[in-house]
Amino acid sequence: MHKVIYDTDPGVDDAMALLFLHRHPDIDLIGITTVFGNASIEATTRNALFLKREWNIPAPVAKGEGTTIDPSRKEIGWPTLVHGDNGLGNIDVPETVDGQLDPRPAYRFIIDTVRANPGEVTLVAVGRMTNLALALKEDPGIAKLVKAVVIMGGNFYVPGNVSPVAEANIHGDPEAADIVLTAPWKVVVIGLDVTAVTTMSRRYLAATAAEGDSAVKLLNELSQFYIDFYAHAVDDGMMVHDSCACVYVVAPELFSTITGSVRVVCGGIADGQTIVKPDGRRFPPGDWDGLPSQIVCTGVESEKVIGLVRETLLRA
Amino acid sequence: MHKVIYDTDPGVDDAMALLFLHRHPDIDLIGITTVFGNASIEATTRNALFLKREWNIPAPVAKGEGTTIDPSRKEIGWPTLVHGDNGLGNIDVPETVDGQLDPRPAYRFIIDTVRANPGEVTLVAVGRMTNLALALKEDPGIAKLVKAVVIMGGNFYVPGNVSPVAEANIHGDPEAADIVLTAPWKVVVIGLDVTAVTTMSRRYLAATAAEGDSAVKLLNELSQFYIDFYAHAVDDGMMVHDSCACVYVVAPELFSTITGSVRVVCGGIADGQTIVKPDGRRFPPGDWDGLPSQIVCTGVESEKVIGLVRETLLRA
Repeated sequence: MHKVIYDTDPGVDDAMALLFLHRHPDIDLIGITTVFGNASIEATTRNALFLKREWNIPAPVAKGEGTTIDPSRKEIGWPTLVHGDNGLGNIDVPETVDGQLDPRPAYRFIIDTVRANPGEVTLVAVGRMTNLALALKEDPGIAKLVKAVVIMGGNFYVPGNVSPVAEANIHGDPEAADIVLTAPWKVVVIGLDVTAVTTMSRRYLAATAAEGDSAVKLLNELSQFYIDFYAHAVDDGMMVHDSCACVYVVAPELFSTITGSVRVVCGGIADGQTIVKPDGRRFPPGDWDGLPSQIVCTGVESEKVIGLVRETLLRA
Repeated sequence: MHKVIYDTDPGVDDAMALLFLHRHPDIDLIGITTVFGNASIEATTRNALFLKREWNIPAPVAKGEGTTIDPSRKEIGWPTLVHGDNGLGNIDVPETVDGQLDPRPAYRFIIDTVRANPGEVTLVAVGRMTNLALALKEDPGIAKLVKAVVIMGGNFYVPGNVSPVAEANIHGDPEAADIVLTAPWKVVVIGLDVTAVTTMSRRYLAATAAEGDSAVKLLNELSQFYIDFYAHAVDDGMMVHDSCACVYVVAPELFSTITGSVRVVCGGIADGQTIVKPDGRRFPPGDWDGLPSQIVCTGVESEKVIGLVRETLLRA
């Protein structure tokens, strides 16, 4: 069993990944921490509580950060064209959802849970890296107690999605991401190299919903706006970014990887770009020297990932 | 016939490209301008005069710049491990070569020649972009009078060679390269995406030299040090970076391309990185907006390029 804390900014593809984590038999979802990104922290936290209630997810929800780790960064606004004004594709979501919000801030929840389960917790982070960076700053010792960190974010040998070289999760808090990627823990980076080619069609999702229970039907409903948005890039379907990171936890064999130290550009025209120095490649002395080697996914068996997502969503 | 000014920092692969330009029947090499990079400006200019003399090349040589366009940049030193202490693989080259150096600095030679041949000159630039940037600053009007600019430099969807994201020619003068790539002329960018997979083996070059005249034998001799250097990356052979740019002039059909505006990162950990915003991809407003669309080579029929180089070198 993989004990997972899911750090998320729901978010449409976040919702699919949440249901995947909840339903996969080899995953024990022990916590949900929220972060800003696809919408404000208030909206993403409300959405997490909403999905927890609708889907009867036992894991506690802890509210996380709503601003970048560097307070001088200007907020760049919410991607309402992608995830809707409410972060869940503009389906009907109550203004507030009564729910058992954990009293701790997300970074503290992460620290406590990791320390209570040394060597056992996988952090799956699919929003901005702010909570993880804060947890590391507050308690650097957790780095060696975490089993693995799997993030959805970045891009390496493909274009970005918010600039020609930057992906939204990393671009939304580059300083936080640089802290997370250069810390002495094992990070697996699932970026656009993998997720941009892992798409689920509208028809496939609808057929899955028709076969599935009310949870999958809700997922299908809230995904329609997002699929409409992706019309410019995907043939009537959606990139399932965040689910890719979750699938990696249980089926890493579906991904091809390279290893190397990873840095994030902070500032300038390449702001938020992730850059890997592949292990074994020679360069003059530079900014990647002496940093931990991380795992960067560069390829994926997309159809198998999509199939595993479908199969898992249908486990009621 | 393609009237070509060859802006170069010989340099071993520069030498091969020079012989290619000199011997290709569809190319009229009307000038050689030197620039620093593979060695100091004194060494690259001396080497250009040496090769001109040895190979009986009628084109005049004009000496170019020896420092970056931004005087506050610190010189990063010469790549003596790649091109040898003298820039030509440590073969025996006289300290000085008597030769008819054009009295004008390279940038002025470029301006005058372009203005004397409006719409006809192709600039093939395979070193740092300093001379071209200076020519543009001195006389922006030349941009619309140049037929095309073909540069060897940069990398897009593959790693760099002097940092994980930067290639040597661009990294050696990023501000100059940004000027050249964003000017309103047509630039074709031949970067590592193409050149790193276009290699010539030691045996292939030796066989070509055995068949060829003394010029090719000299080329083979001066290339041995460079081939030794490439042992870490190529199986007993060399990347023929600069020749790729020259081949493009006469055989563009051997390259696959995308189009888009191109910027160069100046400063920070990504210093010297070339970044293309592919035409037709949607991004929020940013640093690539409103710039001219350039041609970026992303693929190449390497074997045909190598074959065309061989065939051309053997035309005595």
